[in-house]
Amino acid sequence: MANSELDLIERIRKRVALPPGSGAILGIGDDCAIFRARGAAEDLLLTTDMLIEDVHFRATHRAQDVGWKALARGLSDIAAMGGEPRFCLVSLALAPWAGSRWVDGFYRGLLRLAARENAPLLGGDLAHSDKCMCDIVVVGTVPRGRALRRDGARAGNAIYVSGALGGSALGLARGRGNAWKRHLHPEPRIALGRFLRSELGATAAMDLSDGLSLDLRRLCLASGLSAQIWTPPVFPGATLEQAMHGGEDYELLFTLPARASVPLEFEGLPLARIGTMRRGRPGAVEYDGVPLAPLGYDHFRNV
Amino acid sequence: MANSELDLIERIRKRVALPPGSGAILGIGDDCAIFRARGAAEDLLLTTDMLIEDVHFRATHRAQDVGWKALARGLSDIAAMGGEPRFCLVSLALAPWAGSRWVDGFYRGLLRLAARENAPLLGGDLAHSDKCMCDIVVVGTVPRGRALRRDGARAGNAIYVSGALGGSALGLARGRGNAWKRHLHPEPRIALGRFLRSELGATAAMDLSDGLSLDLRRLCLASGLSAQIWTPPVFPGATLEQAMHGGEDYELLFTLPARASVPLEFEGLPLARIGTMRRGRPGAVEYDGVPLAPLGYDHFRNV
Repeated sequence: MANSELDLIERIRKRVALPPGSGAILGIGDDCAIFRARGAAEDLLLTTDMLIEDVHFRATHRAQDVGWKALARGLSDIAAMGGEPRFCLVSLALAPWAGSRWVDGFYRGLLRLAARENAPLLGGDLAHSDKCMCDIVVVGTVPRGRALRRDGARAGNAIYVSGALGGSALGLARGRGNAWKRHLHPEPRIALGRFLRSELGATAAMDLSDGLSLDLRRLCLASGLSAQIWTPPVFPGATLEQAMHGGEDYELLFTLPARASVPLEFEGLPLARIGTMRRGRPGAVEYDGVPLAPLGYDHFRNV
Repeated sequence: MANSELDLIERIRKRVALPPGSGAILGIGDDCAIFRARGAAEDLLLTTDMLIEDVHFRATHRAQDVGWKALARGLSDIAAMGGEPRFCLVSLALAPWAGSRWVDGFYRGLLRLAARENAPLLGGDLAHSDKCMCDIVVVGTVPRGRALRRDGARAGNAIYVSGALGGSALGLARGRGNAWKRHLHPEPRIALGRFLRSELGATAAMDLSDGLSLDLRRLCLASGLSAQIWTPPVFPGATLEQAMHGGEDYELLFTLPARASVPLEFEGLPLARIGTMRRGRPGAVEYDGVPLAPLGYDHFRNV
């Protein structure tokens, strides 16, 4: 993993200094960056996410599903920090095959989710390219200093996930059924993220975009801890492998003081404890007592 | 121009409602979106800009020039609204040919400009793709309600540009010399933008990214006016055609009350009057009394 995404991000991060007094509260390495405007009662959360033809989707996908998913991924990052979405921007590069019908469908899907989540589209950029490529920017807010970060977990904290894992990976493999719908139409857990922040007192949170094994490793690294986990809830029909390493579930992974009282579900979405944060080699994850390799989706693993 | 970029943007814009009380002050159609956080003394400016291999740059360009230019384009949008850059985010999709040396060079160029302009890199996204593609997000601030917009020009206002036009187009054609340097290393006019807002009382401003003829048309459309212009300052060696229609000069185009006293230059950069805003068909531009076709760079003209 000499050239893994984590390494590359770390190399970039080391070169960036956050000037004190600039309003930059949190930089590279979490779901969102955090910025505080002068005098503001709320902090701003900002995230960007790319969706690329033949990497994240294909020309055969319905345009409105692509538009929906592009925004859902960004909204999920806002959810992961306990924020409220406020608006979005979209940069869209169009391939020659993507005519005005495709473009209309893309914006229809995106704007439907934007309207539902109160995240109006305020701008972006347009260009042509060989392949379609979309970069979404979502901006949210959170009360000053209250964002849920990856680096807040403490030794002894309980580890939880929402929902069931592996559904998106199963859907991608099958290309049909409920799992496929889930792959195409992920649901950003906005209300849950807000609940974790304001009611449950979560110490850390992130969204599961690249697979539990890799994402939990990232949370552990940020918090300087290791983790011991057992089998998470598995999406009906999915394999344990898909649940442990499959990407794009967009459920929330979060930590809480061990004594916290956690409901079994939130608005119909199950919340399940899957383990405990421990002192130990930062980033190490044990599953049923055996080291778990971070096999989740890494754009840079094989570079 | 049935499918031009302007038409497409207008079609998208019509579908987006800005919810009152959401903090969204200005949406699609200007250099930046404007957002006001609760209680904040300053407004946020946000802009995104894509830079795509074989559209905006080639694999033979130096990586650090590409990184510099990616950020410079976004900073220029902040300058156009009279803002101060505060931070940036970068989404980068890497082609197979772009190894770690290229990546390091890209970030070196970008971070050098980011450090100079106090716009630290706070985040972004990384992916692989067939071609390199970068989407930059720059966030700036401006005192509450004071952003320079495209829609503020009044009939009778004088029209000005900074610097000389056509240099970037000349450089692209020649591939060497001062004009080529200018094409590779555009200079965002941050200090000038701030001066226009706080000292000169400019009524409208925008940056010249797609050519004077097209960009002035956009300013006229936004302000509901027409314009009469004469020959603008031409970059040494460039043709009048390049000055009128060539893109990527990143100079500022701005309007002022006709009686405003404007210095001949600002920090060594010439400021020249090139015409007058008029009542008349919105968007119509006359050059020496003859209608000027908007021939500047439009990604969607020939779709």
